[in-house]
Amino acid sequence: MLLVLDRSDTQPLYRQLSLQLKGLIESGTLAPGSRLPTVRQLAEDHGLTRLTVQSAFAELQDQGWIQSTVGRGTFVADQTPSPPPSRLQIAGSLAELLEAADRPARYQLAQAAPSEEFFPKRDWKACLQAAMHQEGSLNYGTIQGDEGLRSQISRVLLERGLQVPPEQILITHGAQQGMDLVARTLSRPSQPVLLETPCYPGALELLHTLSRPCLEVPVEAGGPSLKAIEELCRRHRPSLFYTVPTFQNPTGLLTSPAHRASLLQLAQRYDFYILEDDVWGFLNYTPSLPPPLKAQDRNNRVIYVSSFSKTLMPALRIGFVVASEEVLQALSQKKHASDLVCSLLMQRALSEYLKRGLFQPLLQKVVPLYRQRRDALYAALQRHLGQCRVSQPPGGLSHWVQLPAGVDEQELYQEACSHGLVCARGEAFYPSPRGGHLRLSFGAHRPAELEEAAALLGQLLSGIEQRGALLRQRTRLRANPLV
Amino acid sequence: MLLVLDRSDTQPLYRQLSLQLKGLIESGTLAPGSRLPTVRQLAEDHGLTRLTVQSAFAELQDQGWIQSTVGRGTFVADQTPSPPPSRLQIAGSLAELLEAADRPARYQLAQAAPSEEFFPKRDWKACLQAAMHQEGSLNYGTIQGDEGLRSQISRVLLERGLQVPPEQILITHGAQQGMDLVARTLSRPSQPVLLETPCYPGALELLHTLSRPCLEVPVEAGGPSLKAIEELCRRHRPSLFYTVPTFQNPTGLLTSPAHRASLLQLAQRYDFYILEDDVWGFLNYTPSLPPPLKAQDRNNRVIYVSSFSKTLMPALRIGFVVASEEVLQALSQKKHASDLVCSLLMQRALSEYLKRGLFQPLLQKVVPLYRQRRDALYAALQRHLGQCRVSQPPGGLSHWVQLPAGVDEQELYQEACSHGLVCARGEAFYPSPRGGHLRLSFGAHRPAELEEAAALLGQLLSGIEQRGALLRQRTRLRANPLV
Repeated sequence: MLLVLDRSDTQPLYRQLSLQLKGLIESGTLAPGSRLPTVRQLAEDHGLTRLTVQSAFAELQDQGWIQSTVGRGTFVADQTPSPPPSRLQIAGSLAELLEAADRPARYQLAQAAPSEEFFPKRDWKACLQAAMHQEGSLNYGTIQGDEGLRSQISRVLLERGLQVPPEQILITHGAQQGMDLVARTLSRPSQPVLLETPCYPGALELLHTLSRPCLEVPVEAGGPSLKAIEELCRRHRPSLFYTVPTFQNPTGLLTSPAHRASLLQLAQRYDFYILEDDVWGFLNYTPSLPPPLKAQDRNNRVIYVSSFSKTLMPALRIGFVVASEEVLQALSQKKHASDLVCSLLMQRALSEYLKRGLFQPLLQKVVPLYRQRRDALYAALQRHLGQCRVSQPPGGLSHWVQLPAGVDEQELYQEACSHGLVCARGEAFYPSPRGGHLRLSFGAHRPAELEEAAALLGQLLSGIEQRGALLRQRTRLRANPLV
Repeated sequence: MLLVLDRSDTQPLYRQLSLQLKGLIESGTLAPGSRLPTVRQLAEDHGLTRLTVQSAFAELQDQGWIQSTVGRGTFVADQTPSPPPSRLQIAGSLAELLEAADRPARYQLAQAAPSEEFFPKRDWKACLQAAMHQEGSLNYGTIQGDEGLRSQISRVLLERGLQVPPEQILITHGAQQGMDLVARTLSRPSQPVLLETPCYPGALELLHTLSRPCLEVPVEAGGPSLKAIEELCRRHRPSLFYTVPTFQNPTGLLTSPAHRASLLQLAQRYDFYILEDDVWGFLNYTPSLPPPLKAQDRNNRVIYVSSFSKTLMPALRIGFVVASEEVLQALSQKKHASDLVCSLLMQRALSEYLKRGLFQPLLQKVVPLYRQRRDALYAALQRHLGQCRVSQPPGGLSHWVQLPAGVDEQELYQEACSHGLVCARGEAFYPSPRGGHLRLSFGAHRPAELEEAAALLGQLLSGIEQRGALLRQRTRLRANPLV
């Protein structure tokens, strides 16, 4: 096979290879259905590493140009891929994250979402069917949400150490809608909102869209900095503090019990609300988990939001808010003006699922599996990215990786994407540009694949570091030509 | 049975009867499971009409005190009803409408929604199942919505005479979310919005929640008053005009083709956007239906919203917006900050349903049935409420009934509710208090039941008119004591 690879080109080798193979397919030199050489063969013939050939193949396969069948080999696809469907270009890192999560990739580490393989399809079908046959399930239902579901959620929350009556629960379109309603109700464009950083991009996007000025509170080992909160409260009058005390996103950190008590005191002293995001609380790998802030809330300072997106499936789009009836009243007003109600059919299917006692057994099954994945990726990152600082989160689905000084996060991210590894850029988690991190979510892959992904990432990082060192050396040489 | 009924009491007779029966049950005089006298027997024994007894029974049954079994009779319930679950008291007429639609009632004329009996459960189950097995269906998906569904919607819209590529479609959580996004994007709290009145309460609620000043444009036979629009545009600078040109809610009116052309010209001349709500367009009883405004829109002045709530089921919560890519971009930004995405599972199930070509046959089946219901209720209203002006809508699911002068809409509405007939108060359709109408939606009942409902309403209205006449007579007597 005639391939011209130029090691001095700025285009990486795998990309040169994939572009040339694509050209051979487009020109008809490689006919549809014809067999390609093996990875080993191509690597040997052209003096390439196998990883380079694999990356080129992965890219061509992702784009639909070739097909691999285990045990048979790799073939040119029968149908030339049609151009990708046109999509709006939506700005923002939350959008980027959602797009990345939707992209077919060899290593899908962008989405902090449960694995589809664990989803209880059979049980869910039975519950949906039962719901469909209940009277009224196809209709609108009430604004506050299905009474039965609210009762079930009230029971589920007891497991999190939170005792709330169904009347203090509002069903929302995912936790995101709960956050939107809270931000729109309890803050105004003139009022600053405190935000722990790094922080879930959905919260950043929301506050940006609502034109709320944000004040950053750095996350530390015990939780968001109390000192920073106090200082900011003295100088500004924030209305709201957004925090994820349990398995913070992206760091995975757990706010300590003492820290939690102090946060509640500060909220009371400086008169602000706490928006507690607890979407991760059920994916817990520690034996002793403190209850949510809301459980200790004596003064109705905490609005609690959560959802079933991280335990069942994102496509459920069922979240909920827990608040005092007074606050809930105001949220409900905005809720029905925004989108009337949530799907009663889905609500009742979920209610049925919880009522049949299927949720706890599901957690008992998946939590140990996610813990295995967390451990596997952590060990692999230690092996392959020893130069990075990596978190070992006590819950949730993500590792937060701090890159060595001088490494361009954007460059590594782009290279990883083009090698079929998607993850989240650290920049997405800050309100203002700041590089140096990646978030790697391990929910979607088995330990062996996570090992491969870490190896690939390690290799790419080393490449970048070497190129950087070389560049610095050359710059030094050029800068001192007369020495 | 010892009952004391007082005809001079302000409490209506049926209510006196139901309260006393309830008292007898609560005190144990009527034991659980014991048989009640028949309607005929009770009516004869106490000199009541059968309707009065039936109304009392209906109320007791709705509250869970008694149970009727066809052919066996009426019995005291085995279990005393527990107090109704506490719900938030949510203000607003949209909330009232949703609550009314959720209430079990003998005659459900509040909800302008399709009948559950027509919902294609078997087909839908198959489509849901197919969707559940497609890769990625349980995940988030893209912000703009499933590509496959957008393609199918693009095809469906051709039937409405509207040609739009999938790229100009954004999937939303019902049409209401589309409206919310449009209002938040294309108007500001300082900019007035034009609103045809009477008008869908969801639009009123939305604009009220967003603090948008509303300017009323009266609906006339040919459509919203062009003269009013022009005058309002000259004096104010509205950003947006909300209209339902096809089977206006609540009047059912159809904006004429000439009128449509003029609306587009006005939008261009006075620089405002038109928010075209077309949720009713597919429930059409006329042979010649003009295409949506959007189909004639040469200057990207029209934002089109619709949904499948009125043709398939409200619990689907899938609507969509059609707009230029520029506008769609801005809407999408707000969409994902508000609630990320719509349920991909539901989107794909719907996509599958449309792809299998099941939507048109469904319409061909249900539209003639709804037309029958429309005709039946219209005829019955003419018979029993001859003193009212009633619309005969060329599409949609509602009649708009103008009460005779002097009749208190609120009084009739309350009486109807307490007799087990729920409908929508006319007041709900205006931004400022204005009485004198009811909206009666005929989707949920068969012709014979609609006849009964109209008879009941006629009887209640006559009662109110008679009491009113009596009162006027007495007032006259008292006012002129010396004549």
